Amino acid sequence: MTQRTDVTRALAEWIVGCDLNDIPEATQKEGVRTFVNWLGCAVGGAMHETVDRALAGVSPFSGDPTSTVLGRSERLDALHAALLNGISSHVLDYDDTHLKTIIHPAGPVASALLAVAERQPVTGKQLLNALIVGIEVECRIGNAVYPHHYDRGWHITGTTGVMGAAAAVGRLLELNEQQMTWALGIAATQSSGLREMFGTMTKSFHPGRAAQNGALAAYLAKADYDSSEKAIEAPRGFANVMSEKQDYDEILGGLGENWEAALNSYKPFACGIVIHPTIDGCIQLSEELGDDVQNIERVDLVTHPLVLELTGKPEPKTGLEGKFSVFHSAATALLRRDGTPTAFTDEAVNAPELIDMRRRVKVETDPNCHEAAVSIKATLRDGRVISKQVERAIGSFEKPLTNDQLDTKFVDQAALVIGKAQAEELLKEAWGFADLTDVSTLARATVPR
Amino acid sequence: MTQRTDVTRALAEWIVGCDLNDIPEATQKEGVRTFVNWLGCAVGGAMHETVDRALAGVSPFSGDPTSTVLGRSERLDALHAALLNGISSHVLDYDDTHLKTIIHPAGPVASALLAVAERQPVTGKQLLNALIVGIEVECRIGNAVYPHHYDRGWHITGTTGVMGAAAAVGRLLELNEQQMTWALGIAATQSSGLREMFGTMTKSFHPGRAAQNGALAAYLAKADYDSSEKAIEAPRGFANVMSEKQDYDEILGGLGENWEAALNSYKPFACGIVIHPTIDGCIQLSEELGDDVQNIERVDLVTHPLVLELTGKPEPKTGLEGKFSVFHSAATALLRRDGTPTAFTDEAVNAPELIDMRRRVKVETDPNCHEAAVSIKATLRDGRVISKQVERAIGSFEKPLTNDQLDTKFVDQAALVIGKAQAEELLKEAWGFADLTDVSTLARATVPR
Repeated sequence: MTQRTDVTRALAEWIVGCDLNDIPEATQKEGVRTFVNWLGCAVGGAMHETVDRALAGVSPFSGDPTSTVLGRSERLDALHAALLNGISSHVLDYDDTHLKTIIHPAGPVASALLAVAERQPVTGKQLLNALIVGIEVECRIGNAVYPHHYDRGWHITGTTGVMGAAAAVGRLLELNEQQMTWALGIAATQSSGLREMFGTMTKSFHPGRAAQNGALAAYLAKADYDSSEKAIEAPRGFANVMSEKQDYDEILGGLGENWEAALNSYKPFACGIVIHPTIDGCIQLSEELGDDVQNIERVDLVTHPLVLELTGKPEPKTGLEGKFSVFHSAATALLRRDGTPTAFTDEAVNAPELIDMRRRVKVETDPNCHEAAVSIKATLRDGRVISKQVERAIGSFEKPLTNDQLDTKFVDQAALVIGKAQAEELLKEAWGFADLTDVSTLARATVPR
Repeated sequence: MTQRTDVTRALAEWIVGCDLNDIPEATQKEGVRTFVNWLGCAVGGAMHETVDRALAGVSPFSGDPTSTVLGRSERLDALHAALLNGISSHVLDYDDTHLKTIIHPAGPVASALLAVAERQPVTGKQLLNALIVGIEVECRIGNAVYPHHYDRGWHITGTTGVMGAAAAVGRLLELNEQQMTWALGIAATQSSGLREMFGTMTKSFHPGRAAQNGALAAYLAKADYDSSEKAIEAPRGFANVMSEKQDYDEILGGLGENWEAALNSYKPFACGIVIHPTIDGCIQLSEELGDDVQNIERVDLVTHPLVLELTGKPEPKTGLEGKFSVFHSAATALLRRDGTPTAFTDEAVNAPELIDMRRRVKVETDPNCHEAAVSIKATLRDGRVISKQVERAIGSFEKPLTNDQLDTKFVDQAALVIGKAQAEELLKEAWGFADLTDVSTLARATVPR
């Protein structure tokens, strides 16, 4: 491991100098996919009760309403819009994932950027550039401290996202290297978010607040508000205080050559990624069984141990709890072939036929089972046994969502908020965002007609 | 240590139920002293460059300007005013100290309360009640994790202050027990602030942001934005994630009987508390020496080791750096008998006669020397040696500032911003704040005429 003493400054130097021309085409393409997926999630989550309550709490304090609360009619100042859009993009647990760290990269970064882009003119290319740089910063800092940092209890999307957002907004504000160093420092000292909040509305608060706090850091640095110049690597800086692992090679090694932003992945299902193999396999099994799915006597799953640890809730009572129940997830996949947001509503979780099915699901864990794999055995009432192996679930690094699948995901969730026609138009605009001369039009295109 | 699993809820229950009648008179009196000292510091720091830059950064995002930036003509929404006033109250390193934890209690709590009191009617008694409750919460949580938490690198004023501010503002918003539990949770998940920021503008950001974030937590909880109900004590909650020590008896033991809020202390000098014995002793020595102070050949100090560790800067270049130089502090105490904000200006630090004197100061450390003590030996050019022992410095727990000394401190620093006449009037109003029917008048009385 490098014992460097200029990590923060070297990173700031790179951030300030990285133009779109320096970013490989494949990474740019992934950046566009990241943005499209994020926008669909933010619109899809917009009418969630969590967003309603956050709006009720903060609206009285909003400044000039320059920026759109995506998928809604309300407008807020840019910092508050960043908060709200970060919340809505995460609230359905449907956003993107950097699989090496379980960071959900777009929430903090894109939510800040689009809100700021409604305050000042920003082209699509500027946005794409800042988005990729911000995600790169956030994921590389995550790599430097993962897994210890996450294992200690930090919600890594919040703790690293704030620095990604500061870097990204700092690009739009054209911070110089000194100011960018300060922005990273002001962001680092706000790094926060406890995993204890999982299962509550405050989980979604983390990416939202990271977006807002990172943007604030950039605006303060622009006003020459100074901070440490070694915020990441100092003995009492971010990495040493918040982790027992600090590998600064992960931050500076191959910077501008190997792109973490190119490794982003997108969830096909609206729940924690550990249940995805089960849902994938159960949908496939349901398609094979046809009407026979009604005759299932019991279902035996063999999964990675994390599945029960994170999602072992046997009797969920709310849609949110349903996301933490592999039993409910298997049931809705089998009976409704659904793992989208409609699978995790209060209605679904309390539907008698799904309750009956989830009670037939048994889980055994095997540490040798890959996290992206599952083994499923369905026993029918007539004694027949049908098995299904999933080696790598859809949405995993090896089996990424295609652009067509991203389209379906986008329209399915956005249509619930703004209707299918508007969702399809918005999707088309979103794919072309990098060619827009003013990306703020995209934010306004999310407002329900 | 108690292995309780309901720490957060039990604390919330106490917060919601604690009325002014339940608070002993001595603690109430200390609460008034705390408020007076805090107000003087906030006004005294109001025109600092740090405040100017913070204002420039955040002003474009302010909502309804309901609340005063103390000691200035600008107005902001209550949350931003809480941020700015928390910054100005800390920027001179002149604020209060809970000596058991080195928490500066009033910054996060009072800054939030007075800003909110300009948004809604709040009586002096309500303010005093909420102030004491907030400080009690913050200091007790600090006791539960100190010293490990601080040693790891957390700026404890920020990390615990956010929960104190949430509790205090939650009282003004009349949160019920459930909402107060959530407010503590939303505050806990924002707990942050790295000691690496010491010596930069971002140090003062910590109490300011704790005030703002704690108030936000209370407003979100009022809107029923939910969070964990075990945010402090859960395995992935505040205490376990941010410290290796968790002593919940410090939070719940004797709650409402023994008052941490009664143990607050006030700095006589505008710098880190570890140099106070040196300044106290050098001023006494200077008074004894009279004109002979010009004939000092060398000065030998014996101090606690922390003095050199925290304030060992031999050649400070700026007023801020001067606060971290025991050498400069001794020089200004000897030659100017000054340890107030005027001792830590760029002018003072670069004055030739003070530079000459500070180079004559030598420091030896002794772990057996008490933190509040110092031994000073001055050798004159004619060979005479004059010694001074300080057993406990002024401002220490054993030798608290009297009300008269608080008056002098208040007027000395506030006069630099609003003039002596207005400072004296403000002081009088501040001592009587608990009898006001609407404390917002006090905030407006700080605006320079």
